[in-house]
Amino acid sequence: MIQNDTFLRALRREPTSHTPVWLMRQAGRYLPEYNRTRAQAGSFMQLAMTPELATEVTLQPLERFPLDAAILFSDILTVPDAMGLGLSFAVGEGPRFAHKTDSEASIRALTVPDMNKLRYVFDAVTQIKKALNGRVPLIGFSGSPFTLACYTIEGGSSDGFPNVRRLAYSRPDLMQRLIDVNTEAVTVYLNEQIDAGADAVMIFDTWGGLLPAAEYRTFSLASMRRVLEGLKPGATGKMPTILFTKGGGVWLDEMAASGADALGLDWTVALAQARKAVGQRVALQGNLDPLTLLTDPATVARAAEAVVRAAGSAPGHIFNLGHGIVPQTPPENVGVLVETVHRVSREMRQASP
Amino acid sequence: MIQNDTFLRALRREPTSHTPVWLMRQAGRYLPEYNRTRAQAGSFMQLAMTPELATEVTLQPLERFPLDAAILFSDILTVPDAMGLGLSFAVGEGPRFAHKTDSEASIRALTVPDMNKLRYVFDAVTQIKKALNGRVPLIGFSGSPFTLACYTIEGGSSDGFPNVRRLAYSRPDLMQRLIDVNTEAVTVYLNEQIDAGADAVMIFDTWGGLLPAAEYRTFSLASMRRVLEGLKPGATGKMPTILFTKGGGVWLDEMAASGADALGLDWTVALAQARKAVGQRVALQGNLDPLTLLTDPATVARAAEAVVRAAGSAPGHIFNLGHGIVPQTPPENVGVLVETVHRVSREMRQASP
Repeated sequence: MIQNDTFLRALRREPTSHTPVWLMRQAGRYLPEYNRTRAQAGSFMQLAMTPELATEVTLQPLERFPLDAAILFSDILTVPDAMGLGLSFAVGEGPRFAHKTDSEASIRALTVPDMNKLRYVFDAVTQIKKALNGRVPLIGFSGSPFTLACYTIEGGSSDGFPNVRRLAYSRPDLMQRLIDVNTEAVTVYLNEQIDAGADAVMIFDTWGGLLPAAEYRTFSLASMRRVLEGLKPGATGKMPTILFTKGGGVWLDEMAASGADALGLDWTVALAQARKAVGQRVALQGNLDPLTLLTDPATVARAAEAVVRAAGSAPGHIFNLGHGIVPQTPPENVGVLVETVHRVSREMRQASP
Repeated sequence: MIQNDTFLRALRREPTSHTPVWLMRQAGRYLPEYNRTRAQAGSFMQLAMTPELATEVTLQPLERFPLDAAILFSDILTVPDAMGLGLSFAVGEGPRFAHKTDSEASIRALTVPDMNKLRYVFDAVTQIKKALNGRVPLIGFSGSPFTLACYTIEGGSSDGFPNVRRLAYSRPDLMQRLIDVNTEAVTVYLNEQIDAGADAVMIFDTWGGLLPAAEYRTFSLASMRRVLEGLKPGATGKMPTILFTKGGGVWLDEMAASGADALGLDWTVALAQARKAVGQRVALQGNLDPLTLLTDPATVARAAEAVVRAAGSAPGHIFNLGHGIVPQTPPENVGVLVETVHRVSREMRQASP
């Protein structure tokens, strides 16, 4: 039994006493205790691959702030790493793959990885669930099939992922083949997280927003729909799901028909406009600009309140940022944010008849 | 009199024999003849500041391809340079300002520049008009007030312009002051281009799409509306205008009420959806992904045809890319693109009753 199930209720568009809040990258470099644990682990990947330490950092933000959900500490690129592509993180840089999937041969050679190679992730889910002891729900996650393809085609992060777009236009057959393998792998991967105890799962489509509408539909949205269709129920029924395409504000109407229970919003879409686009089909999660947290407490409180008010008092809003917390964020500002969301949303519910 | 006025007719949503096409950065590094002229000039800014050479490179793509408009060869950052902020371009890098506008003092010190410092731009307009000799219309342009602020706050280009977003949230009064000076400067600047003979003007809002909806409205869209309201008529009546916010697909409805005759679209919005959002209030310009031009001629032709067909045969479409041509583009592919747009759009008009 989960004591604070506000997050799960909001995902189901049920009334809640307050707006639940969690923050993308809530366990991360802005927290001194995280940096200490990471130093102990030696590297980011060692941290992610050691269930005890992953559990420790997952729970750190919950010790500081009354957050309404925990999210598995891991990386979106664990699946292609398990495919044998050799993921590493150089200090101060983004992810890098030793082997790219940028040719016909390298794409045709890919297969769904043995899930035993990802056992460290499922073990972390099990241990975090145990450590949480029903306090709040635990969110599992994966990168989207298309977003995984972005990194493996370029061999790492990239400004605009030009080789990805080129491949999508000139060799749609190869791109589809890569997406198909990723889709199957992501489905199995999320199902293992569900088996290990995840209470909800989220698909991070960080780069779908780079595509033209037609290619987004074909290569990103369709594959995420297939993942969602392939998910097992959890212990208490249908698994609640969240789909987040950064830069996907123009496609919300189509995303709402994907089967996801909630859509994540980046900070560029007005919540009221998003609600108009999706109606009551899904919950909405978002969408404060994470850089707001680099200002002062008064500005943070004002901006957080504006997001809560824009969402209105109808059920189905989960407060989050529009993208991950940046490392320079003062933890005090996160405290102000969480307090403001809880307080204002409680006041709004008391004020409405 | 302009011989090929297809572009101006499409801006007014009048019927045309074919879909007019021009391409952002059509005069640029993908053309060997451009690189020769630039080498002769010594630097990008010397090229932009020498009207004879700016005229030469403006006309170069028209000698190769039957484009339906010319666009002034210049930079979007000439106005803050004339404000004394010291623009330079290091080899292989983006723009850099010697002085930033990232403090109260530096913002309060800014004034609308003496337009004599920008005489080289207006002289280029005059000379290009003369060299064109009525062949096709000439488009003048400026960066948007917000986009100019982005570069001067950061002191150059930036990944996500974090200091800009921070200033907008924490010191909206200062941001507004900077936007106000830029708005007045851009208005005077475009009016001088109109006096010199520009047949249409375009505002490039390259970075407005980074903002939350409310801040976009306040700091970018409102200032562009003020610029548009302050424009003089041209020699033949109301000056035709184009407004382009990259990443602005979610705000097209509001942008259509700005007073602009046309909206530029990046490659992420489907043309049919954009048309639905704006109705018949404005013409639409766009929106092929420029990276399509890095593929093969058959892919270019197929993709260009898809854009023409998505726009349909109703008047009011100007074919363009969703952003500027990249330097690696093979010129032959640009030829295929222009030919395809002209041919397919002519066929569509003949096929419809």
